[in-house]
Amino acid sequence: MIVSALLTSVGINLALCILFFTLYSVLRKQPGNIEVYAPRLVAEGKARRRGGEFNIEDLLPSPGWVQRAWQPSEDDLLASCGLDAVVFMRIFIFSLRVFTVAGIIGVFVLVPVNYLGDQLSDIDFADIPSKSLDLFSISNVKDGSNRLWVHFSAAYLISAVVCYLLYAEFKYISLKRLAYYSASSPQPHHFTILVRGIPAHDGSSVGDAVENFFTEYHPSTYLSHVVVRRTRKLRDLMTDAENLYKRLAHLKSRPHTSEHSRRSGFIGMFRQNGDLVRQYSKKLEDLETNLRIEQSDASLRRVEVPAAFVCFRSRYGAAAALHIQQSVNPTQWVTEQAPEPRDIYWPFFSASFMQRWVSKLVVYVASFILTIIFLLPVAIVQALTNLDQLETMFPPLVGILEITVVSQVITGYLPSLILHLFLSFVPPIMKLFSTMQGFIALSEIEKSACNKMLWFTIWNIFFANVLAGSISSRLEIFYDPKTIPSKLAVLVPAQASFFIAYVVTSWASLSSELTFLFTLVGNFIQRHCLKSHDSEFHAPSITYHSEIPRILLFGLLGLTYFILAPLILPFILVFLCFGYIIYRNQLLNVYMPKYETGGKFWPIVHNSTIFSLILMQAIAFGIFSLKKLPVASSLILPLPVLTLLFNDYCRKRFL
Amino acid sequence: MIVSALLTSVGINLALCILFFTLYSVLRKQPGNIEVYAPRLVAEGKARRRGGEFNIEDLLPSPGWVQRAWQPSEDDLLASCGLDAVVFMRIFIFSLRVFTVAGIIGVFVLVPVNYLGDQLSDIDFADIPSKSLDLFSISNVKDGSNRLWVHFSAAYLISAVVCYLLYAEFKYISLKRLAYYSASSPQPHHFTILVRGIPAHDGSSVGDAVENFFTEYHPSTYLSHVVVRRTRKLRDLMTDAENLYKRLAHLKSRPHTSEHSRRSGFIGMFRQNGDLVRQYSKKLEDLETNLRIEQSDASLRRVEVPAAFVCFRSRYGAAAALHIQQSVNPTQWVTEQAPEPRDIYWPFFSASFMQRWVSKLVVYVASFILTIIFLLPVAIVQALTNLDQLETMFPPLVGILEITVVSQVITGYLPSLILHLFLSFVPPIMKLFSTMQGFIALSEIEKSACNKMLWFTIWNIFFANVLAGSISSRLEIFYDPKTIPSKLAVLVPAQASFFIAYVVTSWASLSSELTFLFTLVGNFIQRHCLKSHDSEFHAPSITYHSEIPRILLFGLLGLTYFILAPLILPFILVFLCFGYIIYRNQLLNVYMPKYETGGKFWPIVHNSTIFSLILMQAIAFGIFSLKKLPVASSLILPLPVLTLLFNDYCRKRFL
Repeated sequence: MIVSALLTSVGINLALCILFFTLYSVLRKQPGNIEVYAPRLVAEGKARRRGGEFNIEDLLPSPGWVQRAWQPSEDDLLASCGLDAVVFMRIFIFSLRVFTVAGIIGVFVLVPVNYLGDQLSDIDFADIPSKSLDLFSISNVKDGSNRLWVHFSAAYLISAVVCYLLYAEFKYISLKRLAYYSASSPQPHHFTILVRGIPAHDGSSVGDAVENFFTEYHPSTYLSHVVVRRTRKLRDLMTDAENLYKRLAHLKSRPHTSEHSRRSGFIGMFRQNGDLVRQYSKKLEDLETNLRIEQSDASLRRVEVPAAFVCFRSRYGAAAALHIQQSVNPTQWVTEQAPEPRDIYWPFFSASFMQRWVSKLVVYVASFILTIIFLLPVAIVQALTNLDQLETMFPPLVGILEITVVSQVITGYLPSLILHLFLSFVPPIMKLFSTMQGFIALSEIEKSACNKMLWFTIWNIFFANVLAGSISSRLEIFYDPKTIPSKLAVLVPAQASFFIAYVVTSWASLSSELTFLFTLVGNFIQRHCLKSHDSEFHAPSITYHSEIPRILLFGLLGLTYFILAPLILPFILVFLCFGYIIYRNQLLNVYMPKYETGGKFWPIVHNSTIFSLILMQAIAFGIFSLKKLPVASSLILPLPVLTLLFNDYCRKRFL
Repeated sequence: MIVSALLTSVGINLALCILFFTLYSVLRKQPGNIEVYAPRLVAEGKARRRGGEFNIEDLLPSPGWVQRAWQPSEDDLLASCGLDAVVFMRIFIFSLRVFTVAGIIGVFVLVPVNYLGDQLSDIDFADIPSKSLDLFSISNVKDGSNRLWVHFSAAYLISAVVCYLLYAEFKYISLKRLAYYSASSPQPHHFTILVRGIPAHDGSSVGDAVENFFTEYHPSTYLSHVVVRRTRKLRDLMTDAENLYKRLAHLKSRPHTSEHSRRSGFIGMFRQNGDLVRQYSKKLEDLETNLRIEQSDASLRRVEVPAAFVCFRSRYGAAAALHIQQSVNPTQWVTEQAPEPRDIYWPFFSASFMQRWVSKLVVYVASFILTIIFLLPVAIVQALTNLDQLETMFPPLVGILEITVVSQVITGYLPSLILHLFLSFVPPIMKLFSTMQGFIALSEIEKSACNKMLWFTIWNIFFANVLAGSISSRLEIFYDPKTIPSKLAVLVPAQASFFIAYVVTSWASLSSELTFLFTLVGNFIQRHCLKSHDSEFHAPSITYHSEIPRILLFGLLGLTYFILAPLILPFILVFLCFGYIIYRNQLLNVYMPKYETGGKFWPIVHNSTIFSLILMQAIAFGIFSLKKLPVASSLILPLPVLTLLFNDYCRKRFL
């Protein structure tokens, strides 16, 4: 890609961003859209749909929302959105810090050094727009040149900075976690543990077994227990009853506000209504008796699951029982911290240890297979960036593709768009996989899905694009670990311009996040065509498992390309700034926390950053030996060792 | 190696074994040797040195000791030698079971199949002694022959048998562990935990910090604590005083039994003695006052170490405090189970978390380096087995080496002897490394040394001998993991005869264990030349860290060569039978348990067996593709996956 193509892409995307921002600032002021743009405030009752008075100011874009998103302090955010939201925003703050340092070094030191190297062509300041981006990358530095020592020192410097920031951030977050727990009032689930795999003895019920076990082994702290029961039938009956009740209430309120009764005449309407009301009332009574029978039945007939919530007199007692192995066989009497009541995911309470183990294995295999077969769409994207290849495959396209604008749009914009589109299908699938893995808390499911998505993203966006070629040749590199660094040193820089374009494209996709176009249209249709006024209203919750890996991918890109093509850094910084404001706004106005993990997402960020560092160092090792500076290449070797030791220390210190 | 060379080696070693057995059965009956051959019984007061009456029966070899070693049941062994000894003997029982099954399959199925194959030469039953051992190995089966399916089924069968036996054994041992703990009377260390990394606050002492901390967080269960103190000065003074007292007692008793006083005359001797007695008494008094001062001083001056033993009112309280993380910073208030009093290793109580972490890393690096540089003696051994190579290196030797007996001795016996010799230096070094690693219990040190020795043995005996050639070319194989199975499939069978010889040689070294030649000579010198009658007498303790890896190596050899050269199996069975009887005898008569780990050595055995299985399967994969039976090669792939899953299950079930 040449500089002008990059500028085109930047232009398109900036324009799109401004468009989305303007749209958002206008749309959000429309009274009808308040449920789309501030559902959280509506649900909390802080905002109400205003009357329809027309106001000219509502049609003018204004940047007031940026200020309102910027203003609240971290403590305000913590109070209103919970610790998870704070940890999520800390990812941006951490990344911004890292890439401010990296950006300053990159743009003011590495880019000039690269551009003044003359490996690729002579220096020529006159015609920068038509220059290839490669001139700003390390490829332009002469082989064996002493200037490479600048890159070498930069690698050491950035590793030290990242490690220091990681340590400081982990410490900060663990203190926040602690403050959060000591500030929160005692909750029932703090005194409760979940016991699974309760061994069944013929005759005695699960409840008796639990009672006997805990009164024998934890006599001083045991308080009570609740056995988990299979209640699907009961719940089905209850939903039926609820629906019936709603319909009945709707029918009863109808005659008074009747506007639609003209068609069948007043009397007919009334009679029909009256019949329906009587019919529904009868049904409801039947349901009630059924419910009663079922409820008493449920405790009589054994529909118990070998799992129970056990409550203790003190948090200390619960913690002691949680950490001590209860049984000779560790697959029985398995204890777990009880999740928050709103966080519980019920389907896996009856699964035995073996079943959960097997389903975990199956899920791992399934995610692995999904990750591999996803290479197909990536291959299509790769074909688009290599236009020549496409032209040979589809000769009729030659004419169209030779128009400058078309070719620039296709190379600069289309591939990333397709990739973004395909990627949007993956998080729900990964979440589905995680739900099948046997977790009993929604937060655990989301954490596991987040991990899966992270490795999926790193593999399918980063490695799949880097290791161009057929799938088998891509995998071959991992058979021969000795050559990985040198192969990566060849392949990674070659994709620099693709990833710069990818970062730029993501600006627009990030700001399109703001406008919630789908929800907006849906809301519009609902209000104006269906005229339904459902009283129940749920604010959406943020999907951490799709957002966190996306941000971490940019961290990975920034760190790996820091040495190779530092030109990517300013674009990542812009992305992070946009992201910071946009997500703050969304967290404050749109998303409603569904549960609280207490900042358990941070270790994922930590691990991913360590991985990025090691990858950067491996590539640096490869590039220095490729650039015929073997001394630097061997002197870089202590760096990954030190990084891994640092990681080991952090794990011991914070986990 | 040809069959006759093997038979020579078997002959030499069997003769040596019989020699050692005879020697032992005679020597053990000599009244003077009872401290060498039954020190345990002497220390326990069950046996006493008899008078010197001569008895002709004492000079005749008798097999009575075998019967006496065989007779005691496992419960007797448990009662007299502790659980560790039982677990140690279970290694033999487990291995015997595995190799009985393997031996039956190997000798009655695989050896005939191999011998009837005609890849190497035509079948010829007439001249077996001059045949190469390779005729009995898989190398003799024709490429692509359907007979290889016999080997294929054998691989599956033996994997299933080993996994079943591993599971049964682990279950048996964990039940034994449990029975052991519930049978043992409550010990003080069951109620005690060790707390390290107590944060120091200026002004307050460590004792106060511990008191405050545990009365605040564990008020209902906390009983008392003992702060660890640096007492080297005190201990030095005490040893001095003890030595002085002994010398004084010796002097005072001397005049009455004087036989040596002729030289300096009665009077001179008496005066000298009297002077010395007075001088020593004076010194002892000085020491006593010094001791008093130091003792009071020790509690006054702060020689406290940030570690303390904290006692609880109940085992439950101790267990709860042990398992709950005490502090925000997990590197402070680190809790550990208090070791048995006799098991404590003091030097590392003052080390901080960081110091222990660093010393652990240093020790890992040091053990790694030792393992690598040990390839040198192994290279010498390899040179001896390849006589041709030796002849080209030292031309003058050609004449000597061409004598049949010499060459047979050198190829069949000398290499193994040198290897055994060099190996005997390693366990003390590994134990030294482990002591520097920061453990606070001798049993932990021994367990860690056992692990180090195991990997050292596997690497330096198995892999170093298999991967013949220079060190760098040996390491190259690991750079290219895809080719490991096929390379191993070439290299491992080539060393079959060396390892058969190695197993045979170890018979003799095992039985030489019985006679304790060094101790015997030392004891003889002490009794007859030095005439010292030290009243203190310590029975030695078994060095698990050198014995267990040795036995596990034979397990590895047996499993890896099961498919390739099943001829090794009978020799391993003989080794195991000898070992069973000899170690039983030694445990009952010689070794005194120094401490009790409660069977913590078994997981090492389990892991090593799983590793052996995986290695066997990898080699089977390689050999089937080498033998041009790719279907079998790919059908073997599920086997390692299943084995690893089984291992994962066992870890979850038993650890």
